Amino acid sequence: MANFVSQRAFTIEWGLCDPAGIVFNSRYFELFDEGTWVLFETVLAAPRAKLFATFDIMGIPLVDARARFLVPVKFGDAVVITSEVAEFRRSSFDVDHRLMLDGELAVEGRETRVWATTDKDDPARIRSKPIPADVIGRFRAG
Amino acid sequence: MANFVSQRAFTIEWGLCDPAGIVFNSRYFELFDEGTWVLFETVLAAPRAKLFATFDIMGIPLVDARARFLVPVKFGDAVVITSEVAEFRRSSFDVDHRLMLDGELAVEGRETRVWATTDKDDPARIRSKPIPADVIGRFRAG
Amino acid sequence: MANFVSQRAFTIEWGLCDPAGIVFNSRYFELFDEGTWVLFETVLAAPRAKLFATFDIMGIPLVDARARFLVPVKFGDAVVITSEVAEFRRSSFDVDHRLMLDGELAVEGRETRVWATTDKDDPARIRSKPIPADVIGRFRAG
Amino acid sequence: MANFVSQRAFTIEWGLCDPAGIVFNSRYFELFDEGTWVLFETVLAAPRAKLFATFDIMGIPLVDARARFLVPVKFGDAVVITSEVAEFRRSSFDVDHRLMLDGELAVEGRETRVWATTDKDDPARIRSKPIPADVIGRFRAG
Repeated sequence: MANFVSQRAFTIEWGLCDPAGIVFNSRYFELFDEGTWVLFETVLAAPRAKLFATFDIMGIPLVDARARFLVPVKFGDAVVITSEVAEFRRSSFDVDHRLMLDGELAVEGRETRVWATTDKDDPARIRSKPIPADVIGRFRAG
Repeated sequence: MANFVSQRAFTIEWGLCDPAGIVFNSRYFELFDEGTWVLFETVLAAPRAKLFATFDIMGIPLVDARARFLVPVKFGDAVVITSEVAEFRRSSFDVDHRLMLDGELAVEGRETRVWATTDKDDPARIRSKPIPADVIGRFRAG
Repeated sequence: MANFVSQRAFTIEWGLCDPAGIVFNSRYFELFDEGTWVLFETVLAAPRAKLFATFDIMGIPLVDARARFLVPVKFGDAVVITSEVAEFRRSSFDVDHRLMLDGELAVEGRETRVWATTDKDDPARIRSKPIPADVIGRFRAG
Repeated sequence: MANFVSQRAFTIEWGLCDPAGIVFNSRYFELFDEGTWVLFETVLAAPRAKLFATFDIMGIPLVDARARFLVPVKFGDAVVITSEVAEFRRSSFDVDHRLMLDGELAVEGRETRVWATTDKDDPARIRSKPIPADVIGRFRAG
């Protein structure tokens, strides 16, 4: 069974680019974050603003993010970004993002996130929580 | 004759919002800028990265930008933004942007931009230039 | 009596600039917002995260923001931004921001904000509230 | 001999934070980028806008960036970020960034960058170039 892969096609905005005329690195992490939201609301069939309440969590906070920049992406380039959960563990998971330019992999990203809840005794503390098998199952495209 | 109006529908991203859970004000000006690019590439039928070369200008720099915030726009809201040139003057023009939420005007923006070229004797200086009548004509929807 | 004026000096970051090598317009509105926070925490002598609780408000949301761009500001430029409340009205006020480059006014901004509270009967609604005379008095530099 | 370490202390801005009230992940990569600029202009004793011309390169583009998020950083938090070159290789190097909150490591970042020039035969192509020994030497604090 394959992973469910969400996809967005768009044109690189002026405001995403730096004086070298290419996408400023931090902007890719914004694109990855949005990629994760699109993936989750599509797969879990709940609007993004209701995802957490629906699944009784406080959120899916990032614990690690990384990107490899292979090809410079310029203002006006037509790109496609794909997002999928590469691996689920007990209470954390990896989301892989690929930004393609003219059929070539230009930027590769990975976010590691936690399925999280707030501590009942201390609401300021965040605790990881086992990811329901039902949730995991829906991310398989089968 | 009416103005040509471009339109984009999208969902408010997590990364656009502030700790109050609503779109951070500077982000609207990013949306307006992108609205102007979409409008211009649609009307002038040239890809955004070639617009300036096609029309022999250095760009359409902003001289004034403003926004009125009427209704708070939240994470996950489905919105529509429309953009149109409200007025052309000799070498400057106003682009009006309207962000609609549930059919209601939520944010209203206006950018004033200049049709600009670089000074032939001093490339570091920017000069305004008369906007071609042909360009102006294309922004009327007929 | 003069207005209290807060001031910050800094160097323009790479990430603030666009492919033209100058500060992207939306970034000025981030700088204005931060200018307002610095002004308020200085004058009201409370850390920014406690300002609202200290003064029993939900915040000081923007209702209008504008900027005039007079001189292009480039990557690496050393600039100074000043912020002051230009006018207090019953429950709203204007914050003026001036970004100076080499002693010259480069960008001029104005934010209109509301002294706001949440409706006791409907916490989702925001209401303006009279600004305490004591608060207003502190913004006069004496 | 120790690495030269640059340091900046600042307060977390409203505009850096997301609806969870903590710094949005992409913003850390902006902070890292600025950390690198501050480090390089300090160590190499050239203003940032003249760094590349001084060292006859086109820039120091990123090929890899990553962050680990250990402690949530909130609006108004007073933080310190340190930046240093952890390793120089022939034509690439790693810049390590540490964001400290109350003396505790909150976020850890690493950027891998290339000392780059443009190809003489094809200015659109970027080539890595050996980092001068003199440049490397200056980054040792000893």
